[in-house]
Amino acid sequence: MSDSYRTTRRVEFRDTDAAGIVHFSAFFFYMESVEHEFLRQLGLSVLSKDETSPISWPRVSASCDFQSAVRFEDVLDISLRVARLGEKSITYEFVFSCAGRPVATGKTVAVCCRFAPGAVPESIPIPAVIAAKLRPFASS
Amino acid sequence: MSDSYRTTRRVEFRDTDAAGIVHFSAFFFYMESVEHEFLRQLGLSVLSKDETSPISWPRVSASCDFQSAVRFEDVLDISLRVARLGEKSITYEFVFSCAGRPVATGKTVAVCCRFAPGAVPESIPIPAVIAAKLRPFASS
Amino acid sequence: MSDSYRTTRRVEFRDTDAAGIVHFSAFFFYMESVEHEFLRQLGLSVLSKDETSPISWPRVSASCDFQSAVRFEDVLDISLRVARLGEKSITYEFVFSCAGRPVATGKTVAVCCRFAPGAVPESIPIPAVIAAKLRPFASS
Amino acid sequence: MSDSYRTTRRVEFRDTDAAGIVHFSAFFFYMESVEHEFLRQLGLSVLSKDETSPISWPRVSASCDFQSAVRFEDVLDISLRVARLGEKSITYEFVFSCAGRPVATGKTVAVCCRFAPGAVPESIPIPAVIAAKLRPFASS
Repeated sequence: MSDSYRTTRRVEFRDTDAAGIVHFSAFFFYMESVEHEFLRQLGLSVLSKDETSPISWPRVSASCDFQSAVRFEDVLDISLRVARLGEKSITYEFVFSCAGRPVATGKTVAVCCRFAPGAVPESIPIPAVIAAKLRPFASS
Repeated sequence: MSDSYRTTRRVEFRDTDAAGIVHFSAFFFYMESVEHEFLRQLGLSVLSKDETSPISWPRVSASCDFQSAVRFEDVLDISLRVARLGEKSITYEFVFSCAGRPVATGKTVAVCCRFAPGAVPESIPIPAVIAAKLRPFASS
Repeated sequence: MSDSYRTTRRVEFRDTDAAGIVHFSAFFFYMESVEHEFLRQLGLSVLSKDETSPISWPRVSASCDFQSAVRFEDVLDISLRVARLGEKSITYEFVFSCAGRPVATGKTVAVCCRFAPGAVPESIPIPAVIAAKLRPFASS
Repeated sequence: MSDSYRTTRRVEFRDTDAAGIVHFSAFFFYMESVEHEFLRQLGLSVLSKDETSPISWPRVSASCDFQSAVRFEDVLDISLRVARLGEKSITYEFVFSCAGRPVATGKTVAVCCRFAPGAVPESIPIPAVIAAKLRPFASS
């Protein structure tokens, strides 16, 4: 049984739209921000570097299903789970709720990439030190 | 064989991030913006009202797969297709490329909803006048 | 001598740009968010309503001067001061620093407005209950 | 008498907020985007590089005064003027209107900076080739 990482986030005004609710795109920001917070509390950063060049985690896939609307100043409960820890990629799953009401579920797949200056980002195996920290959160 | 709607969009600086590329969330903005542009050229708007209250199209699902990175000032070619025209919802599919290179493919499902003041958005059948304009773009 | 409200905020990835630093626009979001947090801890909200219609605080002016760049995951110290409490408007002043280094100073002027449905927002005197809560933070 | 650069921009949904109008922060994005468009039509880019390192134009100051609200799908008329062409900085002034109605006026000051990897951005004199192209738009 894997662990999940739990946090909360209050909806900011910039994340609302003229329909009076939170804009759907904000959930993709929230997923990313929770992922970064998760990495930070493991002592990691989404933007690191090894001896040669910056390493980061571009997404190859992102999706979200929306069950109910939330509004300005609502507080979201968010949980993150590592659904899959691959050789070069991580699949994160997210569950959003608000005061017990289901709000959204999302998924992102991030690939470990080297960002050499001037070159196209190149996927690389997840460094062992990073994989070791993520493993307890990964589903078997 | 259904029609597709084609447009272009130049990447703005606000859509880039510290990895030097376009942030993945920008594609969700682009999909939405192309959808609105598509509706406008049909004489429709994503934010309308009938005799009783505002009608809009919240998303119940949005996803995007990313094939390659784009950068500041790149020009994206975008095509929109109505993959499914349901009784209460529309499924849009999007293909992004840049100078012939595949960049991303995305999908959104928007549900026709009434926004009565103070109430939860309520799904309603797509008004006939709107459905008629969308049908030529829908797959059979 | 007036009080100031102090808080912190960690830079999120979505606020960075391809120059590798925080995009200047993010400071306007931060100012707004701190203003809302300040109002909340006073038991107020930037988006309220009285017996007739919604009341909110559109900005009539916003400015920011930037002294140094900040980057992803930096933690900003932010202080808010009510520089002027007018009959219909509030002038907020903000100071941003990072680990003791000056980063930016900003100012916004928000006007109390009634948002009657379908009408242009109309400025109104700040309700007495709100003004009373803000006064301790206002410069004499 | 200096020239001004004129363009238009349609308000996108992501730029609106729960008050039903365009969020004030969007005007800072619009100013930046018009500045970039202006530079592009001069054959320049806000993100360039010389033989040693990237050159860009961080803002040291940005301000905007708002006269009236705009809404989703409104079309803004925007004009840009180079109010001052300094040795290391450019001051831009912007005027926004909508169907003849004044909407906002803004100002940004951008400083020419070298972004050497790992170093703090360093201000440099505006390269002569760039200054020559900007001069016709500068007030005497």
